[in-house]
Formats: sequence, C-alpha cells, structure tokens
Amino acid sequence: MSLHNERYQIALDQALTGRDEGGIPIGGALFLGDTLLGQGRNRRVQEDSPIIHGEIDVFRAAGRPQRSWQGNLTLYTTLSPCIMCAGASMIYGISTVVIGENRTFEASEAIMRSSGIEIIVLDDLPTLSMFTEWTAANQELWFEDIPNPRRTT
Amino acid sequence: MSLHNERYQIALDQALTGRDEGGIPIGGALFLGDTLLGQGRNRRVQEDSPIIHGEIDVFRAAGRPQRSWQGNLTLYTTLSPCIMCAGASMIYGISTVVIGENRTFEASEAIMRSSGIEIIVLDDLPTLSMFTEWTAANQELWFEDIPNPRRTT
Repeated sequence: MSLHNERYQIALDQALTGRDEGGIPIGGALFLGDTLLGQGRNRRVQEDSPIIHGEIDVFRAAGRPQRSWQGNLTLYTTLSPCIMCAGASMIYGISTVVIGENRTFEASEAIMRSSGIEIIVLDDLPTLSMFTEWTAANQELWFEDIPNPRRTT
Repeated sequence: MSLHNERYQIALDQALTGRDEGGIPIGGALFLGDTLLGQGRNRRVQEDSPIIHGEIDVFRAAGRPQRSWQGNLTLYTTLSPCIMCAGASMIYGISTVVIGENRTFEASEAIMRSSGIEIIVLDDLPTLSMFTEWTAANQELWFEDIPNPRRTT
C-alpha cells in the first residue's frame, strides 16, 4: 500500500464515523510533511450547519496555517471537493489534494490545478461503493449539501 | 439611501464590531427577501480559526438553506469575497452579492458571475477608508487571512 493510500485511510475512517453518526459520510485529513495536523468530517447534520463540510472541519481542527507550512501541506479527502472546499484549500496553501473518488461528484479540480495545486485521484473502490450506497439511500440530504451536483469533466 | 445601502449598514456594523474586538474588520448580512436571516463577521482572531471568514460566519448564523429560499437570497459583505466565500455563496444558492468595496481585494467576482450570481459593488467610501487604514496597520494579520492577495480585474 502506498504512503498516500495508507494516510488516506484516516480520511475514510472519518467518513465512516460520520456515516455512523447519521451524517454525510465525507472525511478528510491534513498532513504537514509526515505530521498529521488535523482530521475531520462533514458535520452538516451533527452541527446542523451548512458550512462544516469535511475539508472545512479538517482546517478548523488544524488551525491557522503558518507561513513555514507552505509547500508541504497534503490534504486527503474522500470526495472531490466542492467549490467552497476547493477555495478553502487554495487560501490555506495546500500543495497536494489526494482524492478518494471523483465519480460521484467533481466540480473544482480544474480551478485547484490552475492555482498550482497537485491533484491525485486514488479512485478508491471501497470509498466509491460506500458513498454511492449512501447517496442512493439519502438523496434529499445529499442534494441539500451539494444543491447543484454536476460533473464538469 | 437605497435599500441596498440601508441593509448594507448591518454588514458594515459587523465589520466595525470585529475591529473593536481586535479582529479582521470584514462583516456580512444575509437577507431572504425582506427578512434578515443572519449576520456575522470574520472571526479568525476571535475563534483562532482559519475558516471563519465574514461570509462563512453569516452562513453559519443563517443555518441550513431551504430549497424554497432559492432565487431570493441576497448576501451583503463589506469586502469582495475570497474564493472560499465565493464558493460558499455558490453552494448556498445566493442570487445577489452586494459588495462594499473591491479595491482592496478582488479575486472571485468572475466565478460567481459565471455561476449566475448577480454582483453589485457599492464602492462605499467609509468602508474603503476603514479597511485600508486597518490593513495598513495590520499587514501581517491581513496577509495571513488572505495569503495571496491579488486583483484579477
């Protein structure tokens, strides 16, 4: 198992924890080099909040970025980021975003790439299986979280 | 004073409250038709958080959007949104963004327009005066919040 796949399991575990809480199963983790800075999950249901997507929860947990972190930050996320979370990654100074799957949703990889972020898509089948099963059973909640789901590529 | 200018004062008051708290003076307010749904301000300093920009704080206060709100949501903000807050506005379903000033910072008006959001810039001189004075005196904090400030237009 590659290093990215190994670290990615933290994000997937967060997604599964979210699912078990009755939430939207999207999780993430942030590394500075080899150090885990933070992990988190979508808490729209848990906090009754429209803004706590998985990646936003990760950045909240990791705290205010230091200038010395620039160039060395890798974000792991189970689902390709929405435009809010892509934008958050851009202003946080993320270098690389490692994505579990982008078949269910993909809207913002191009803008992240254009800002200089490296995008790696694992196409992780356990993630895809888990998430497609969940979205099929929870369409109303999913379409509330991402009101205009669409693939752009 | 126009209706937009009148409602905008709530956003500016939020920014001034933030400044008086020692925070970054950017504020916002969200209206559904004639109803104030929420107001907020950047709380990077107050909550020691990298993700609570003014607009994000407004959406947190307003809560999860209902489908019936679509087409009738106007966001007021003292400063032109960064890409995270532009993205948040897009997924929240904002119709119109009324901006106090975009001379200090503008990076995301084009992407909001391309998603169908109407952009109105008040070019409010009290806001511009307040914010340029603050940024000049607090450059480190400002560049931490917006690590890559640039004008794109």
